[in-house]
Amino acid sequence: MSKGRVEAFSDGIFAIAITLLVLTIAQPASYTNLAQELIDRWPSFAAYVVSFVVIGIMWLNHNSIFQHFARVDRGLIYLNLLLLMTVVFLPYPTGIFGEALRQGTSARVAAIVYSATMALNAYAWSALWIYASARRRLLAPAFPEAQRGPATLLISVGSVLYTVSIIGALANAYACLAFHALLALYYALDPLSRRAASDGTAVE
Amino acid sequence: MSKGRVEAFSDGIFAIAITLLVLTIAQPASYTNLAQELIDRWPSFAAYVVSFVVIGIMWLNHNSIFQHFARVDRGLIYLNLLLLMTVVFLPYPTGIFGEALRQGTSARVAAIVYSATMALNAYAWSALWIYASARRRLLAPAFPEAQRGPATLLISVGSVLYTVSIIGALANAYACLAFHALLALYYALDPLSRRAASDGTAVE
Amino acid sequence: MSKGRVEAFSDGIFAIAITLLVLTIAQPASYTNLAQELIDRWPSFAAYVVSFVVIGIMWLNHNSIFQHFARVDRGLIYLNLLLLMTVVFLPYPTGIFGEALRQGTSARVAAIVYSATMALNAYAWSALWIYASARRRLLAPAFPEAQRGPATLLISVGSVLYTVSIIGALANAYACLAFHALLALYYALDPLSRRAASDGTAVE
Amino acid sequence: MSKGRVEAFSDGIFAIAITLLVLTIAQPASYTNLAQELIDRWPSFAAYVVSFVVIGIMWLNHNSIFQHFARVDRGLIYLNLLLLMTVVFLPYPTGIFGEALRQGTSARVAAIVYSATMALNAYAWSALWIYASARRRLLAPAFPEAQRGPATLLISVGSVLYTVSIIGALANAYACLAFHALLALYYALDPLSRRAASDGTAVE
Repeated sequence: MSKGRVEAFSDGIFAIAITLLVLTIAQPASYTNLAQELIDRWPSFAAYVVSFVVIGIMWLNHNSIFQHFARVDRGLIYLNLLLLMTVVFLPYPTGIFGEALRQGTSARVAAIVYSATMALNAYAWSALWIYASARRRLLAPAFPEAQRGPATLLISVGSVLYTVSIIGALANAYACLAFHALLALYYALDPLSRRAASDGTAVE
Repeated sequence: MSKGRVEAFSDGIFAIAITLLVLTIAQPASYTNLAQELIDRWPSFAAYVVSFVVIGIMWLNHNSIFQHFARVDRGLIYLNLLLLMTVVFLPYPTGIFGEALRQGTSARVAAIVYSATMALNAYAWSALWIYASARRRLLAPAFPEAQRGPATLLISVGSVLYTVSIIGALANAYACLAFHALLALYYALDPLSRRAASDGTAVE
Repeated sequence: MSKGRVEAFSDGIFAIAITLLVLTIAQPASYTNLAQELIDRWPSFAAYVVSFVVIGIMWLNHNSIFQHFARVDRGLIYLNLLLLMTVVFLPYPTGIFGEALRQGTSARVAAIVYSATMALNAYAWSALWIYASARRRLLAPAFPEAQRGPATLLISVGSVLYTVSIIGALANAYACLAFHALLALYYALDPLSRRAASDGTAVE
Repeated sequence: MSKGRVEAFSDGIFAIAITLLVLTIAQPASYTNLAQELIDRWPSFAAYVVSFVVIGIMWLNHNSIFQHFARVDRGLIYLNLLLLMTVVFLPYPTGIFGEALRQGTSARVAAIVYSATMALNAYAWSALWIYASARRRLLAPAFPEAQRGPATLLISVGSVLYTVSIIGALANAYACLAFHALLALYYALDPLSRRAASDGTAVE
């Protein structure tokens, strides 16, 4: 299968998953006092924004990482499906996270589920990268060898950070949500491509 | 990332968001008198039509505006994601707008939420355009310099008009919905491309 | 805007609308006697199948008709959006049609709503074709002039038949559903392209 | 219609159906003891994973099988729509399978419905392949003639196995779900392409 087709399929799934997020915001229980109903739902809106940013940046980094690949093979396609399975699942924990914060019960359980989903997602990213980069299996010649180790380290740090977020969820659910927003912004900086680019190699 | 990929991803999100709108029309509460149930829901159908036209024309203008760009950069991609976040959110206020009008309670609150979403969307359009056009950062050479100022003005007027719609929502919810329909038709005229084209430059 | 982009956007909307149809089948009210619950829902499954076939064949004919166009203009894009608005709406009447047949109340009202949606869709097809073919505004040179009249007639007959289906809905809801299945099969024969092709002109 | 367009439309439907699966997991009935609620829902999560893998591998094999086709014709397009109709339907039996296992009632009925849907899907695959491969109607010249018979046999075995799964559903619903997971893994090995490739013919 061509790399382009895997990318198009993945892009489609990112687009659909990001759009389905809006369905996670619970409808008002009553319209008698709609303003209050909506204000009470602010955690759902916040969770929507965080998950939207998370999936948007994942889409961006998915493009970046695939640009470093010369080709795809069946192993990569399976790991990519595994990654997409965690992305597609994200609307579910997003919905219960927002609703649990609103109701003020089981918020830490919901935060743990959200963080665990993100951790599984981070492990899938790591597996994808390690599989593709080990012995440069699928790497494009343009990707500088000197950046292979640092890139693996950066991605592994992500896995650790998301694992830590599960522990953070035990402490405070709101702090956990903020932590996920921060992590998304960290990934927005796209350290992998920047480091590769700073090595003097054009990474288009 | 190539401009084509950002456009395809955006087109996909426009297509999904516009299709999810149908889910915002509440199911009949009972089938004993279905005709009456459906007639009572006319505001939901009206809100569906208005939001469909709004998203459809946004899709059209998204294509137009990107045709004036020579390339995309990371800043534009983030502003585009911000814009898409407001588009993807639109089914939520569309749903509560229709339902609040049907129930006849909190209709102005729902109108304010709808208008505020549209205003945020207009600000995102303005930010996108100003970012891309300032000092012609991403503009294609074919875009006439003489049209840069007028285009910025036209887009800024949109931001003002959508801000005004929030105030209009305080007056009358039905008038507010009609105002949004009118605004969509205004954008259907695509003043940006027309002005650019009338300048004697071929804008395909 | 290029024809290819309008086609890709339309294809995306057809794909999403056809997939959302599954959401129109109501969940079982109870799992105590699931077999009975599902058997009772046979009208919803039938409506799902009919609407799936309808949208699938529309997608096919949308491709066929656009192959006869040399280019698209803004007028066609607006008429295409109008057409898509009726396609996107289809899951709603499909859902209430199946549910009304199951409950055995207001089935004719639901059949009228379904038929009226299909009639609006047929009018949009007619408007699209007449706009594009009148004085060969957007027709490709390969489309034989001798087939222009017959094609217009065939499409107009569709509008009439769907209008008739509204009247048929008054008589019997089940017969109405079967009539829509038959009409879809009629369109599956793609009379427009066949006639054009039989004229000795290659229609790819 | 071009093969590429049929493939893009099919890919889109696979992407949407796989993403809608997340909507099949029922929301918690209460947030008082969210952990328990979610643990009780493990069959829904398991059904989500199985159906995700099933659709993911179908997408993969859809690509494989279409690579063996030189072109598409109207008959293939209709059989492909029939195949997609069973794919799009899959979220419904997935949802009731998970929920029936959770409630512990009618689980075998739900397993039968799930297995019957998969069997219909397998028959559609068989019909598609037999239609396209009989007398090499649509086969690419590169597909080795010696592999035509074995490929038909392998696909027919799939139809038999999925028919058997309906009987297995009568015995035990959990075993049935596991059986479907195993069958998906069997198809993950893509015997069709492997055999074709091992024949010394390059199958890209």
